[in-house]
Amino acid sequence: MAMVRASSYVSRAASVPERLTRVVQTFARLPGVGEKTAQRFALYLATADEDIARELGRELSALRDHVRPCERCGNIAEAAEPDAKARCAVCRDERRDHALLCVVARVQDLLAIERCGAMRGKYFVLGRLLSPLDGISAEDLPLEALRKMVLDPEGPVSEVLVATPPSVDGEATALFVARELSPLGVKVTRIASGVPHGGDLEFADQVTLGRAIEGRKSFG
Amino acid sequence: MAMVRASSYVSRAASVPERLTRVVQTFARLPGVGEKTAQRFALYLATADEDIARELGRELSALRDHVRPCERCGNIAEAAEPDAKARCAVCRDERRDHALLCVVARVQDLLAIERCGAMRGKYFVLGRLLSPLDGISAEDLPLEALRKMVLDPEGPVSEVLVATPPSVDGEATALFVARELSPLGVKVTRIASGVPHGGDLEFADQVTLGRAIEGRKSFG
Repeated sequence: MAMVRASSYVSRAASVPERLTRVVQTFARLPGVGEKTAQRFALYLATADEDIARELGRELSALRDHVRPCERCGNIAEAAEPDAKARCAVCRDERRDHALLCVVARVQDLLAIERCGAMRGKYFVLGRLLSPLDGISAEDLPLEALRKMVLDPEGPVSEVLVATPPSVDGEATALFVARELSPLGVKVTRIASGVPHGGDLEFADQVTLGRAIEGRKSFG
Repeated sequence: MAMVRASSYVSRAASVPERLTRVVQTFARLPGVGEKTAQRFALYLATADEDIARELGRELSALRDHVRPCERCGNIAEAAEPDAKARCAVCRDERRDHALLCVVARVQDLLAIERCGAMRGKYFVLGRLLSPLDGISAEDLPLEALRKMVLDPEGPVSEVLVATPPSVDGEATALFVARELSPLGVKVTRIASGVPHGGDLEFADQVTLGRAIEGRKSFG
């Protein structure tokens, strides 16, 4: 869809070099990149003083040879050999708490949680959320890999913290994961939802405020 | 600057593969791409079902071998050989009106004018605008190349339409170009400035409305 739009936009323009049009169309396949942004990138790379194009080209050509999802948890990982399996830095880190497993939707969410520094356990990346509207159902979730990780004899998991987003799809997925894992005898928890730090009560939506009140905690 | 920010942002995150960090840093050098956007691009390319990374990598590696500014007008052009000079499609098009030359700031502006279909002459891309704040002065403008194009014996120019943007820098550059070209005996014109098509008078700024009134035209 994005590709078709970019193509029609560019072909309506002056006779742009075919090679540049291909770069524009490929950029337009990136998430959140429309036709004008793709054209800005391509023109910048074609005319910038530094040859960033070649540098980025070299990096991208080799990217998939070495960077791929971790075979264990789905986090992003680097493999030494082009066809080798990869294990991510978190899975390789022996100081991590094996007993706590944090389930997230996307690698971006994992990185955000890592930055806050409050999670010392391991992770599992679902890669997607249940979404009837997008045709994503239970079979599309990597439940077998998740069960395998929970029951891993190397380090048995005692608590699974489900950190999918507090959206409709995220909540549905969290409930589903909790139900699927309960027969395994692990404690399943959910991240807290409420008014964000620095947030204004006046501008919080009703659901968020309701959750902040339901999830209230006593002092001390 | 953008690179430093991206680097600090990524290094604060979980041990992201070094190779991915390099891709993030390189993406962050594109105009308008911040650290989070660069990370989104890199993660998408590393994990998408299709190997867009390799495709984009191949295109970008060869981009600068073939695509470069037109030797005559500065528009984007494609050269057959890696080291050959390039002439753009507009300069090569013999059906174009040689007598009318449109001066623009950037290739993007040229492409926008081409899309509107109202310009049948040739172009000249300045590449920059006079901007004392950014340290861009008269010597930084390609005036010699512009003069050469105006006086080109192949097709002498009778009118130069200055289509730099109606901003402070764009107006200053337009006045400067007009003054520099007047000794050459060409007519120098400026694109109209006023209320845009579909625009609401209520929301037009004072300068725009003032120009719309000053530049008023009689019917018929």
